[in-house]
Amino acid sequence: MRILILGGDGYLGWPTAMRFSARGHDVHVVDNGLRRALHAEAGTDSLTPIATLDERRAAWTELTGRTIGATVGDLTEWSVVEEVFTAFRPDAVVHYGEMPSAPYSMVDRDHAVFTQTNNVVNTLNVIYAIRDLAPGCHLVKLGTMGEYGTPNIDIEEGFIEIDHKGRRDVLPFPKLPGSMYHLSKVHDSHNIHFACRVWDLAATDLNQGVVYGIQTEETAMDDRLLTRFDYDDVFGTALNRFCLQAVVGFPLTVYGGGGQTRGYLNLEDTLRCVELAVLHPAAAGEFRVFNQFTELFSVWDLAELVQKAGADVGMDVTVAPIENPRVELETHHYDPVHTKLIDLGLEPRLLSDTLIESVFATIERFRDRADTRHILPRARWRPGG
Amino acid sequence: MRILILGGDGYLGWPTAMRFSARGHDVHVVDNGLRRALHAEAGTDSLTPIATLDERRAAWTELTGRTIGATVGDLTEWSVVEEVFTAFRPDAVVHYGEMPSAPYSMVDRDHAVFTQTNNVVNTLNVIYAIRDLAPGCHLVKLGTMGEYGTPNIDIEEGFIEIDHKGRRDVLPFPKLPGSMYHLSKVHDSHNIHFACRVWDLAATDLNQGVVYGIQTEETAMDDRLLTRFDYDDVFGTALNRFCLQAVVGFPLTVYGGGGQTRGYLNLEDTLRCVELAVLHPAAAGEFRVFNQFTELFSVWDLAELVQKAGADVGMDVTVAPIENPRVELETHHYDPVHTKLIDLGLEPRLLSDTLIESVFATIERFRDRADTRHILPRARWRPGG
Repeated sequence: MRILILGGDGYLGWPTAMRFSARGHDVHVVDNGLRRALHAEAGTDSLTPIATLDERRAAWTELTGRTIGATVGDLTEWSVVEEVFTAFRPDAVVHYGEMPSAPYSMVDRDHAVFTQTNNVVNTLNVIYAIRDLAPGCHLVKLGTMGEYGTPNIDIEEGFIEIDHKGRRDVLPFPKLPGSMYHLSKVHDSHNIHFACRVWDLAATDLNQGVVYGIQTEETAMDDRLLTRFDYDDVFGTALNRFCLQAVVGFPLTVYGGGGQTRGYLNLEDTLRCVELAVLHPAAAGEFRVFNQFTELFSVWDLAELVQKAGADVGMDVTVAPIENPRVELETHHYDPVHTKLIDLGLEPRLLSDTLIESVFATIERFRDRADTRHILPRARWRPGG
Repeated sequence: MRILILGGDGYLGWPTAMRFSARGHDVHVVDNGLRRALHAEAGTDSLTPIATLDERRAAWTELTGRTIGATVGDLTEWSVVEEVFTAFRPDAVVHYGEMPSAPYSMVDRDHAVFTQTNNVVNTLNVIYAIRDLAPGCHLVKLGTMGEYGTPNIDIEEGFIEIDHKGRRDVLPFPKLPGSMYHLSKVHDSHNIHFACRVWDLAATDLNQGVVYGIQTEETAMDDRLLTRFDYDDVFGTALNRFCLQAVVGFPLTVYGGGGQTRGYLNLEDTLRCVELAVLHPAAAGEFRVFNQFTELFSVWDLAELVQKAGADVGMDVTVAPIENPRVELETHHYDPVHTKLIDLGLEPRLLSDTLIESVFATIERFRDRADTRHILPRARWRPGG
């Protein structure tokens, strides 16, 4: 298949590109280097030293004989999208190409406007490009479990059957997004659903949990193929950050009460989920939503797991709760359905002490690059609050 | 009260500004003349000859001794919003300032991107301005009943109580918007709801039906105070267009089967609803949604009403169904709740033959300005379809 990976230079995008290429697909990536630029601006960086996109692609070809095509460009510019779709004519588009950080989106008005404009406009461009330049192409869009928030009922996969006053319908699951970033993903979901209803687009929305892990089969082949590993306050995510904090001897920064519970999945499982979605495409007109995670953990659960795994290898890991910079429930119901990917064949790699230790090992290799000045949260959901 | 009217030069905005001014409030309007510019571009115009914003304001002062302040500017520019909020410090903002046309938003990708960017960014600017420059200010945002689409259950006012697997919550009513424009309003609703949840903003979302009518107490005082009356394919709405078609002897253009049912309300009732919302503000942190319409009609119902009212005054009105340019259900359940404005004191002016005849009379006065070349729909929801 001809597979276009938007955001193909990113934490997930680059490993996904290699995975599909390794499986014999024709892969082309698009990226504007936004994440690299934002890190440079903030004075932060990936823990892992990552090669440039050109270096990565050259190393991949050198090691495997396979080629990954690339376009450096901004998906909010129609000319970029038009050229890529016209030249590559994808069978499937995997869309990771968005500004992915909740804290970034909450810095101030400028960041909120940038986040929503960037994400909404580039996704609009993609659905118009599929409609007009690549009809039949399957859109696999990365969403987030954060679109749902934490309602007091079980979260279904995208849609819920509602009985109301003697009538019944299956309707989009109501959304309670918790940041300007999460809102942008809800906007995308509505726009894509519309394109499926009105233009018969085929789309799969992968509402993903928090991804952890640092290596895949392909990144482990050569350091030039490493993917990024963010642990800073803007792009880092809970479990990855806790692992780094454990290794460098920084207390684990639990936000607030720590009862915030979310879905998590391993980096390898993300690749498998995306592959399953691509290999089993949605039908024309279908807007299919998968909740993409394998296990639930509260922030406290994670801190304790990391503390225990640390103890097993002789590290003295401490936990230091800090004031929660976000506005979110710290105790809540959370039991989202996540069976559709299992039904397609996903066999989850559950988090075990062994896995955490393997993350420790990779972090250890690069610990000299760790900069603890950018771990504590700066963006606050309630400014001055 | 100090009341800021965004989009205060428009069909509803200008009459709203006069109404609040007449009631003794301190009124300031903001408008960038978008509607006038888009008409000029398309070669269309309001049936009623409308004065410029400056002429309108001067006439209002001349006739009433009252002043309406004005800023000409684009609400997507933060500097404009910042200056207005800092200088005027509103107690309430009535936000009509968006691109309001579904057909316009469906012309092509450019129009869709403009519509969503314009509407989402200006509303983001407004909520940040309230948060940072006018805390305590009540936001009254014009939404649309079109945000809900036509689900197979009764539509509630913004939220629905859902019992699911033994648990219960009150959640945002699921949305099925039917155009890129309607999607932009759903995005706004989610963004505003977030601002209420996280920043304790007070907001009322008025999900309005289709407005008909041409005169208000204030516009009737002097022709320089007339509001616009659009009947073209882009900005015209069903009942207004049917009335014009009847007067100029053009067949009533029913789209498709004509069973499409929507909520409707009189222009005077819109003013009353907005006034009720402003005088009874939402509480801090409350996102209050009112379904703002007074009666339901199918397109066929309207065509028959206009035909009958025409016959009563000796006009021979014909009906000519045309292919539906939109993608929408033409037979469907529709019974939305709309009690909250009634509870606040709204006394609906129901559509009667007398009212239609009064619309006929005003149209008759300006019939020489009618241009029937721009009545038939051009934008199609499915291009080439």
